[in-house]
Amino acid sequence: MAEDDKFDIAIIGGGPAGLSAALTGRIRNKKIAVFEHLDFSEKLQKAHLVDNYLGLPEVSGKGLMQHFSGHVLAHKPRIVKEKVMNVFPGENMFTLLTPKATYEAKAIIIATGVVSTLLFEGERDLLGRGVSYCATCDGRMFEGKDVAVISYTAEGENEIEFLGELCRSVYFLPQYKADFSRMRAPVKVLAAKPKAIVGDGQVEKLVTDQEELKVHGVFIMRQSDPVENLLPGLELDGEVIKVNRDLSTSIPGVFAAGDCTGKPWQIAKATGEGLVAVLSAITYIDKL
Amino acid sequence: MAEDDKFDIAIIGGGPAGLSAALTGRIRNKKIAVFEHLDFSEKLQKAHLVDNYLGLPEVSGKGLMQHFSGHVLAHKPRIVKEKVMNVFPGENMFTLLTPKATYEAKAIIIATGVVSTLLFEGERDLLGRGVSYCATCDGRMFEGKDVAVISYTAEGENEIEFLGELCRSVYFLPQYKADFSRMRAPVKVLAAKPKAIVGDGQVEKLVTDQEELKVHGVFIMRQSDPVENLLPGLELDGEVIKVNRDLSTSIPGVFAAGDCTGKPWQIAKATGEGLVAVLSAITYIDKL
Ligand SMILES: Cc1cc2nc3c(=O)[nH]c(=O)nc-3n(C[C@H](O)[C@H](O)[C@H](O)COP(=O)(O)OP(=O)(O)OC[C@H]3O[C@@H](n4cnc5c(N)ncnc54)[C@H](O)[C@@H]3O)c2cc1C
Ligand SMILES: Cc1cc2nc3c(=O)[nH]c(=O)nc-3n(C[C@H](O)[C@H](O)[C@H](O)COP(=O)(O)OP(=O)(O)OC[C@H]3O[C@@H](n4cnc5c(N)ncnc54)[C@H](O)[C@@H]3O)c2cc1C
Repeated sequence: MAEDDKFDIAIIGGGPAGLSAALTGRIRNKKIAVFEHLDFSEKLQKAHLVDNYLGLPEVSGKGLMQHFSGHVLAHKPRIVKEKVMNVFPGENMFTLLTPKATYEAKAIIIATGVVSTLLFEGERDLLGRGVSYCATCDGRMFEGKDVAVISYTAEGENEIEFLGELCRSVYFLPQYKADFSRMRAPVKVLAAKPKAIVGDGQVEKLVTDQEELKVHGVFIMRQSDPVENLLPGLELDGEVIKVNRDLSTSIPGVFAAGDCTGKPWQIAKATGEGLVAVLSAITYIDKL
Repeated sequence: MAEDDKFDIAIIGGGPAGLSAALTGRIRNKKIAVFEHLDFSEKLQKAHLVDNYLGLPEVSGKGLMQHFSGHVLAHKPRIVKEKVMNVFPGENMFTLLTPKATYEAKAIIIATGVVSTLLFEGERDLLGRGVSYCATCDGRMFEGKDVAVISYTAEGENEIEFLGELCRSVYFLPQYKADFSRMRAPVKVLAAKPKAIVGDGQVEKLVTDQEELKVHGVFIMRQSDPVENLLPGLELDGEVIKVNRDLSTSIPGVFAAGDCTGKPWQIAKATGEGLVAVLSAITYIDKL
């Protein structure tokens, strides 16, 4: 692996929590990567008005994220515009896998934001058996077959194009509003709510509030995937990552910050935790 | 008590933690008082350059506190420029005592900053037996007697004037640099470091690195007094206030945020905790 792709600390997520961690990490002169597959907190960028982040009164979510990212980018962390699919713990070192490449880091900060607390019925059981969170990674397995794509982010639209070239039919169920008139066969846009994924050991169909779709695969595109998928074995507390006061988790070298550690889901909590997490991570790697 | 002096939430300390709590508390439309006896975080105002508060790059401590206080004051919390000396828990209600008046609140947020971890030898044992943190409160007990004043903040200088009118001699040991040439008898300015307070059941002398001063009383003026004195019985964790993830403490209705809950001593940790503490306090009072 190129030295360039080895980091002291890999931060997964470029929202308020991840950016705050990156800022103090760089000020402390560590080699930092921020993995962010979308724009910096697309979610927060939709807020019309934020007035409770101390010191920056009455700012739009977009404006706030510009202040945040401008501040951090001036300190030159490496920004990797890829989605981390898996993290594998190794000897004093973690390996991170994205659809494009492999990276290494001595410590990990998970700052992936709120994860939808409700998985679809069948999603957990059929993960890897037809259910996937990444068309780039798993699309080829469905060549000439039928798939459905449930998407909560515009990112899904790129994946759709790719699947459209590969698959026999692609049912696209966007869970947000936009103009989809450019979609061409074999993509079929459906205004339906997914209910359950059904199959005996392998995906057989997707049940929606309208109909049942016979498919071999279901791709789900959320802002954040379930944590248990990112790093199996990480201890949860209900649906959120279980953390100690120093934001360490159940796995040594793995820290977490922001919405993914639980309520309140608020910016200042996220930035505060990002700071604490990176300082704890620095203490951890300095001891290695 | 005037309705004006009854609050939903009393926040003790107007540093980053207290101000962040006040901001979100007011946005949530609660009746909020911030008790701050000095300027808003005098300590932080001395910082030349702060660059790790996300969104406000390269700002002086003074400038940052101007952004903070300006933002909060626009939401009109009550600012009480008095030092809280004691908090007494009552039935669904706390009473706060300052040298000037008495206030009530349904919930308390302690945001008093770092407390000097080292008390002087003898300080704890002789508290209330000659050791005091408030000349306005206890000065009269030393009329015609000899006292020493150890001060870490300029606030001590007002106390000195008052004691100078009352006492036979006043040894002033400022632990910071300034021009004290205006001090008149019976005040005597000493450039000495205090070492121990000695006495058998009652203060008899103050030992410094230079000499032993025979005194009846020792006043100690720090930015923050020991927490155990503010609210006896509050559970500590070493020298800091023991808190849960939601920043509740061992006493129902009392929350804590910022440097007083432990390291890292950093602004973003303080503002994040202030936010979480006030949301937890709101949940608490809404249940009453
Ligand atoms: C409309 C709206 C208004 C809001 N208004 C306020 C407000 O006024 N005040 C307030 O305090 N809070 C507000 N919030 C909440 C606030 O946005 C969140 O608390 C905050 O963004 C949490 O920060 P975070 O960094 O933990 O997570 P997020 O901001 O969710 O960021 C997580 C980031 O991680 C990325 N990511 C996830 N998984 C991966 C992966 N595997 N690989 C790479 N990147 C990944 C995501 O793309 C995302 O950018 C609002 C939220 C919304 C939606
Ligand atoms: C020189 C210097 C530089 C720093 N630089 C940075 C930096 O670059 N980045 C960073 O993140 N942090 C920095 N810090 C640390 C930062 O200042 C603290 O972490 C932060 O101020 C803590 O906020 P707080 O609200 O918990 O406490 P404080 O800021 O200490 O505020 C507590 C307030 O409570 C008041 N108070 C105490 N007791 C009472 C009472 N009984 N009644 C009424 N009022 C009371 C005090 O007067 C004080 O104003 C620096 C600190 C110093 C001293």
